[in-house]
Amino acid sequence: MSEMEPTPDARKTVLEKYNKGLVQIYTGNGKGKTTAAFGQALRAVGQGFRVCIIQFMKGRKYGECLAAERCLPNLTVHLSGLDSFVMRDHPAPPDIELAKQGLDLARKAVASGDYDMVILDEINVAVDFKLIPLADVIDIIQTRPPTLDLILTGRYAAPEIVDLADTVSEIREIKHHYNAGIKDRAGIEY
Amino acid sequence: MSEMEPTPDARKTVLEKYNKGLVQIYTGNGKGKTTAAFGQALRAVGQGFRVCIIQFMKGRKYGECLAAERCLPNLTVHLSGLDSFVMRDHPAPPDIELAKQGLDLARKAVASGDYDMVILDEINVAVDFKLIPLADVIDIIQTRPPTLDLILTGRYAAPEIVDLADTVSEIREIKHHYNAGIKDRAGIEY
Repeated sequence: MSEMEPTPDARKTVLEKYNKGLVQIYTGNGKGKTTAAFGQALRAVGQGFRVCIIQFMKGRKYGECLAAERCLPNLTVHLSGLDSFVMRDHPAPPDIELAKQGLDLARKAVASGDYDMVILDEINVAVDFKLIPLADVIDIIQTRPPTLDLILTGRYAAPEIVDLADTVSEIREIKHHYNAGIKDRAGIEY
Repeated sequence: MSEMEPTPDARKTVLEKYNKGLVQIYTGNGKGKTTAAFGQALRAVGQGFRVCIIQFMKGRKYGECLAAERCLPNLTVHLSGLDSFVMRDHPAPPDIELAKQGLDLARKAVASGDYDMVILDEINVAVDFKLIPLADVIDIIQTRPPTLDLILTGRYAAPEIVDLADTVSEIREIKHHYNAGIKDRAGIEY
């Protein structure tokens, strides 16, 4: 090793500081959390990344999922929920079962080495609703491969997860068309 | 017309209230504005929409643009800027010229009928930096075809534009990896 080469420790610092995978959180009560994550996925796919998205508490293929299936071979989307509203205080057994399956999928996707970026959509809500344990999500974050990019979305991000993240964006609702009586619509909400 | 059919006025109200195109704004100092717009575009494309994105003050094809060019024929992206920083108080003549060209493209895309959704990325900043007049952007919003979806992104959204929008999300920076010395990276920033 020449004197000009960084020591292994210095290299490790550089890797950690400048080339490590990033943990991003999109939370808050405004519109744009899932779409920000999918936009990030599209950016990553365009740069040659392999991206896996696991959608908690969702059982319907939204437009972004349909587009990915049809057009984006490097963007894999899994649904781990029912297409119905989860009751916060009384989740149905299948809600819990599917969320646990999503967590297993997440663990495997993160550890597999098959992906450069893993997105856990709505996982913050699944934790807040106690469908899955916070400790398991913390474990996934802490044991991820160092160069993996990880994104977690959903309202109610736990402070422990915010602490572990590199970047946290809170999307605040200033105005929402729901409040004007405008309903869910293809291309906008799904 | 049977008595059960809505009057033209009632139909107009229903169209305006429930089936009208929506104006959305993504603003604020946090990461996720452009990606939220591209995620919305991906959702719309998956539902069969034709989407046009005009990127103000950007001159480099980011990953999302590369992915769209390669894989998403219904998502057209135009760049209307240089690949260099615009000085707020001293924009270079080409910055102004390219922003004006972007505004012309925006006007044409909105009026053409060729698109179901038009996204004007970073246009709020172009207005705030006085590269283009606020009045022209207001005019585009007010004269758009009634079923067109329009999305405007960028920090510093003008209050006049916020007033005209159906949905406004402010993306607040809670944490950003820049503050830990982590630099721009493919797949994350571009």
